Amino acid sequence: MADAFKDDVLLVYVPSQPSPQFLQGVASKFPNLKVRWVETPVDKGQLLPPDHLTAEQWAGVTMMCIYHVPKPEVIPDVWFFQTVSAGTDTWAKHPKYQDPDVIFSNASGCQPPQIAEWVIGSWLSHEHHFQVYADQQKQELWRPRLEMEVNVSTNRRMGILGYGGIGRQCARLGQALGMEVFAYTHRERLTPESRRDETYCVPGTGDPDGLIPARWFSGTSRDAINDFLAQDLDLLVVSLPLNDDTRGLFGREQFEILSRNRNKTFLSNIARGAIVDDAALVHALETGLISGAAIDVTDPEPLPKGHPLWKAPNIFITPHISWMSSKYWDNLSDLLLKNLEKLATGQTVVNLDKKR
Amino acid sequence: MADAFKDDVLLVYVPSQPSPQFLQGVASKFPNLKVRWVETPVDKGQLLPPDHLTAEQWAGVTMMCIYHVPKPEVIPDVWFFQTVSAGTDTWAKHPKYQDPDVIFSNASGCQPPQIAEWVIGSWLSHEHHFQVYADQQKQELWRPRLEMEVNVSTNRRMGILGYGGIGRQCARLGQALGMEVFAYTHRERLTPESRRDETYCVPGTGDPDGLIPARWFSGTSRDAINDFLAQDLDLLVVSLPLNDDTRGLFGREQFEILSRNRNKTFLSNIARGAIVDDAALVHALETGLISGAAIDVTDPEPLPKGHPLWKAPNIFITPHISWMSSKYWDNLSDLLLKNLEKLATGQTVVNLDKKR
Repeated sequence: MADAFKDDVLLVYVPSQPSPQFLQGVASKFPNLKVRWVETPVDKGQLLPPDHLTAEQWAGVTMMCIYHVPKPEVIPDVWFFQTVSAGTDTWAKHPKYQDPDVIFSNASGCQPPQIAEWVIGSWLSHEHHFQVYADQQKQELWRPRLEMEVNVSTNRRMGILGYGGIGRQCARLGQALGMEVFAYTHRERLTPESRRDETYCVPGTGDPDGLIPARWFSGTSRDAINDFLAQDLDLLVVSLPLNDDTRGLFGREQFEILSRNRNKTFLSNIARGAIVDDAALVHALETGLISGAAIDVTDPEPLPKGHPLWKAPNIFITPHISWMSSKYWDNLSDLLLKNLEKLATGQTVVNLDKKR
Repeated sequence: MADAFKDDVLLVYVPSQPSPQFLQGVASKFPNLKVRWVETPVDKGQLLPPDHLTAEQWAGVTMMCIYHVPKPEVIPDVWFFQTVSAGTDTWAKHPKYQDPDVIFSNASGCQPPQIAEWVIGSWLSHEHHFQVYADQQKQELWRPRLEMEVNVSTNRRMGILGYGGIGRQCARLGQALGMEVFAYTHRERLTPESRRDETYCVPGTGDPDGLIPARWFSGTSRDAINDFLAQDLDLLVVSLPLNDDTRGLFGREQFEILSRNRNKTFLSNIARGAIVDDAALVHALETGLISGAAIDVTDPEPLPKGHPLWKAPNIFITPHISWMSSKYWDNLSDLLLKNLEKLATGQTVVNLDKKR
């Protein structure tokens, strides 16, 4: 393994200082690998793309760990990408992604704990009217709002569209709250083996064996999705990848279906904004087809000032930050180091991205 | 059982309409029992005490279900009280409470799911900076705050002071988040039997067998408490009853101990305001001895305008509402009906209050 990567240059472009553990790991295991670690600059909360990198910094790069999608012409020799997010939809049209010889590992498993915390935290904040009380606190007003119903989660139902790492940790938290969990997956999962998930999972979290859901649903058709939406879901978590099947998945028809549930549904979208039609969501909130929504993703991003979503009733919007955690870059560089070991020994990488 | 309570009048004084299930249960099982159900009026969010009840409404009352503490002279013949909260500290000096022949059942077990949701929801809201993003949303400002650390809960430590029904459901949620749980109880719990909890527990919630804590602490001395506070707790949940041992338990010394933990501690108080010295809490927040606090209880209540707690940094205050849930009065009248059956057949009531 020690003579691996003698012709390789790994460019790491992330908004974090180099992880000492990672650099030590590389130095001891792969002394020939050159690592260029460039901290991504942040301006007004946006990660800046690598356009400012010099020809020298691009020269000879064969492996990358990056959030942005570089222009093809600056990365002619790259044969391995460690992406920084779980979804690789931003890569879909890129020639490197379409090249069957180029290996992509996505970052699945680094985010589920914090994203599931975001989902459950925003759900509980809504159900317990925290925003109303926070506003009262600013006015130094002690006023119990006995007239506002608080719906405790026990015996309520959580539906999870896309039962990957994030969905599985949401399920684990929902189960602890006393909720019933229904899962929806793209392909059918009839056997215990098919319900397992092999992607990285933080120990003590998630549902790697797929034991939590009371019922499993599946299918690729719109009818199959619509049938799932009609299952009297109190909380609906969207944790699907964005692709041709899921783009614009939630339109007026889907919100109409949700509105016929026994109790109104709360929508939580931590996947991609383009899965939900914005105008239909605004309409659903304004007309009370759903009880509320928490969204960490919009279409477009950044969501511009004046966009009607900002002022829709019963919505909580955050600027695509649910993946953040102080442990994120540590998790990611752990994953990257594991993958270097896999590559050096000719094994399949962890979280091999199944290109669409 | 059918001829039970022929000389009894049950006065129910709660802010809810009569539960049909309860009235049907009484009619079929105890046709002789007279039930007077008076809906507690609410003014500016405060439950009004029963001072407006007429002599006729008080006449002959022998059993009560009530939140307030009536004057002794209006309830000379009452021999059974179903209280509406888990804590009975407001009754401590009342002659009825001190009378060994008068039976009190408290409402333990009706609140843990919603109170634990309040604890975990406010903890996650704080850790994920939801208030900052809610304020940005009002300004229609899309700005990821990459500079603000988000500390995910995995591998962090929750300390629970008072491991009753509420503490046990907090533990269950903490475990699902990937946290380590340390429990503190008044009396020592060395055996599996001693770790069980016999009070009412909503199925699928809590930790009735006491299996979740990684470590158990106990004791009645201040030193024992201080030792627990020094255990590097990230989240400290106060779920103790208020009594002579716990009044003013958290003073400057205790916050100093917390400040020496490896990570700063977040304090969540859903017990009673008088357990924490307000001035010491304000000082701890202002000088950063702790990372923040969420409190649903204060001393006094209502917390008056201008009180320094309102403006302390990193605090979330709600007006004693964490017990609320749309299922609360259903749970409570279920418990009351169960207790009528116990009393009619000479058995010990559920949640018999062990008077101090």
